Amino acid sequence: MQKAVCIMSGGMDSTLAAYIAKKRDNYEIVALHFNYGQRTQKREEKAFSDISELLKCVKSYSLDLDFFSQIGGSALTDESIKIPTNGLQSGIPITYVPFRNGIFLSIAAAIAEKEGASAIYIGVVEEDSSGYPDCREDFIKKLQDAIDSGTKPETKIEIKTPLVHLKKEQIVQESIELDVPLEYTWSCYKNSDIACGVCDSCRLRLKGFEYAGQKDKIPYQ
Amino acid sequence: MQKAVCIMSGGMDSTLAAYIAKKRDNYEIVALHFNYGQRTQKREEKAFSDISELLKCVKSYSLDLDFFSQIGGSALTDESIKIPTNGLQSGIPITYVPFRNGIFLSIAAAIAEKEGASAIYIGVVEEDSSGYPDCREDFIKKLQDAIDSGTKPETKIEIKTPLVHLKKEQIVQESIELDVPLEYTWSCYKNSDIACGVCDSCRLRLKGFEYAGQKDKIPYQ
Repeated sequence: MQKAVCIMSGGMDSTLAAYIAKKRDNYEIVALHFNYGQRTQKREEKAFSDISELLKCVKSYSLDLDFFSQIGGSALTDESIKIPTNGLQSGIPITYVPFRNGIFLSIAAAIAEKEGASAIYIGVVEEDSSGYPDCREDFIKKLQDAIDSGTKPETKIEIKTPLVHLKKEQIVQESIELDVPLEYTWSCYKNSDIACGVCDSCRLRLKGFEYAGQKDKIPYQ
Repeated sequence: MQKAVCIMSGGMDSTLAAYIAKKRDNYEIVALHFNYGQRTQKREEKAFSDISELLKCVKSYSLDLDFFSQIGGSALTDESIKIPTNGLQSGIPITYVPFRNGIFLSIAAAIAEKEGASAIYIGVVEEDSSGYPDCREDFIKKLQDAIDSGTKPETKIEIKTPLVHLKKEQIVQESIELDVPLEYTWSCYKNSDIACGVCDSCRLRLKGFEYAGQKDKIPYQ
């Protein structure tokens, strides 16, 4: 069996991506999580830990990236910037963390090269999302080229983005089909106990459940 | 004046790159250093700190990337793997740290976007080097494309590699022309007090001084 490094935030999208890697694409899973000083870091790490146990991952990396707080520049990593709760706006929101997925995927590539894994799964969603530039397919393709060029000649790593063109309701539907335990996932940007329901991430999640005609089992304010 | 993020290891190449950014290309310097669990981490950080002070940088980031030790897979970050001292071999040496420059440049891109810097300087050398795949111009060009695609539309960051096609003796010569204080730099992979003179990095450095007809002022065993 081949190995895949799955970047797992503990949220809905990356959890489904990891289940697709395991159940549909038959990879052994090397689970990879990042603590980067985001507000709900501890809650997300718990979600990651629960899910990677359920997934019976062969190896699990939970890496501390404290330097994100030194960089700042985002409402997710800088407590002095407020999380927007007024609904999704056009343009790139203040929750964008500069080049976060570039950093995440580069670290994933290093781990994949070390572990001899042949794929990296990332749960990026392009259209039905917050509009982050580092979640777009064009970016992923270009970083793929960079990884091909910047690793050993014998290293072959393919970045897989099974959700990139899905709508949120399709993500909920596919999760139910694959028995993904969505009740263990966490999406809220603001709270760690009861989800706020009004940050962009909660709004996208709730819309997905509503349009899919399903009930979200996590608690909301 | 425009700002440039200069990735500075404390070694000869990246120090010259930063001096070129400042003295030849007239940038204000945002200095960026990484502690990634390499054996000579403290010595390299001292060199970085000395040099960034001499360069009068407008801002200085020294980031701890402890997760490199969790990844391992290189003689630089794993104490159980011996540093080779038998001379440069063909192929990729065991001192290669998986996708290190991919990670370094991604973090530099995040800082450049946050700081509004328009350039990143990195002292990669392609031909006259240890043969790391992430030091080649082709890789840099591809990562440039990924950064262009994965950051905000208004973000314009150019990766500059002023040394990529230089030989080591040209690096020594250019350093002398630009008054780069090479005696403050540190290159040895193994030791932090007196350079070993026989690791790949010492060998490349010594060759550069020898071919340039110059004397290296740092102490050797």
